[in-house]
Amino acid sequence: MSEAETDEPTFVVTKVNRVRRRHERGHYDRKTIYEILDAALVCHIAYVIDGQPYCTPTAFWREGDHLYWHGSSASRMIRTQAQGIPVCLTVTHLDALVMARSGFHHSVNYRSVMAFGHAHPIEDRAEKLRLMDNFIDRIYPERSKLIRQPNAQELKATTLMGMEIETASGKVRNTHVGDEEADYAAVPAWSALYPVTQVLGEASECPRQLPGLAVPEGMADYVPGATVDSVMTKAYRKTFGG
Amino acid sequence: MSEAETDEPTFVVTKVNRVRRRHERGHYDRKTIYEILDAALVCHIAYVIDGQPYCTPTAFWREGDHLYWHGSSASRMIRTQAQGIPVCLTVTHLDALVMARSGFHHSVNYRSVMAFGHAHPIEDRAEKLRLMDNFIDRIYPERSKLIRQPNAQELKATTLMGMEIETASGKVRNTHVGDEEADYAAVPAWSALYPVTQVLGEASECPRQLPGLAVPEGMADYVPGATVDSVMTKAYRKTFGG
Repeated sequence: MSEAETDEPTFVVTKVNRVRRRHERGHYDRKTIYEILDAALVCHIAYVIDGQPYCTPTAFWREGDHLYWHGSSASRMIRTQAQGIPVCLTVTHLDALVMARSGFHHSVNYRSVMAFGHAHPIEDRAEKLRLMDNFIDRIYPERSKLIRQPNAQELKATTLMGMEIETASGKVRNTHVGDEEADYAAVPAWSALYPVTQVLGEASECPRQLPGLAVPEGMADYVPGATVDSVMTKAYRKTFGG
Repeated sequence: MSEAETDEPTFVVTKVNRVRRRHERGHYDRKTIYEILDAALVCHIAYVIDGQPYCTPTAFWREGDHLYWHGSSASRMIRTQAQGIPVCLTVTHLDALVMARSGFHHSVNYRSVMAFGHAHPIEDRAEKLRLMDNFIDRIYPERSKLIRQPNAQELKATTLMGMEIETASGKVRNTHVGDEEADYAAVPAWSALYPVTQVLGEASECPRQLPGLAVPEGMADYVPGATVDSVMTKAYRKTFGG
């Protein structure tokens, strides 16, 4: 995909990424898709080894139309993905449980993205170091400056994988209970929506903390009760702007 | 897999489910794997269409060594899976963010399961109705008795998929900051673990609620601030025992 194409506001819709069921929930614009991705720390990646699909959870982040994750250089997932195989990287935020008056209309609210591309390892050492700093800072703003830099052994043991988003789709449900018209009056079942959030608790300091260290400025948004998606979104913007 | 084998306390370890990296985090016993599965509402399923892997989030539940989920009968996912293809169903609970003194030792605490098997549709009507009631009750105890039963059109439009767990592995990290020994003293980076929980908010009643309906008894555990995994575990036990 050329730079020009990357600037397009929407991803091209193909048979791979078209949202077929509940197509009214589908989104192909980069703004929506980027927001869902950048609010997440963990994704699930589908890939195939010898005809067997695997679904592996891992941390990831986005830069432009590229997604990055990492793993042990010796892992089967990484060794397989390094061959340039097709992958699907999916992010899901669960936002609510929705109880209805029929089983058919029970639902959940969510924001999800499926991104399709081919995995490749980042071989260039300087690029790898730069990206690994971004990986830390994207979660904990400016932390890469505070910590020890990777040594040769760690760099060798860790493979950084990248993937250009060749196509992607977002899917969002953010509505209330929706029942068959006749059921509202006919079915005396108490119905409701329960919001769901993923939140941070209070920091538990490392028991071997050096005395006198202050909580770094970059952690200002890490307060008890803050939602993980809001903290990830803020950290993302502090690190990459936008 | 025979009934006798199903009663074995651990899943057979094969090249598919063996935890190779961080093998000390690996678990193959049914008790650990069932607990992680039964605490979850949402999984991610990897499957392959025309060589392209897909990773789709969906609600699911377990009965014995079988996993179930559903979808629109017209969806590509369901139409493909109904052919009996191999799938990998993965559940992930994010429990903490762990900041360390080197990028290499940054981590997250989690509980995850990867379960492998072949998908098949539940064709028997009575079995399908029984399982669909379980699907509701497993989330909202005894709710299936309160709601309208599925009509013929809904039953036709919904395919219930099942999968016997042929093999599975669990992976758990539940430790604190772990750094290179030399780094504790040498690197003055404030380090900590942030617990993460997924919690329920206050119920938002359906705006078209019939007057005079009480909150059903089965919802007693659905209180603001309750963690989704604890509520799912309790609902599971109320419905299936254990």
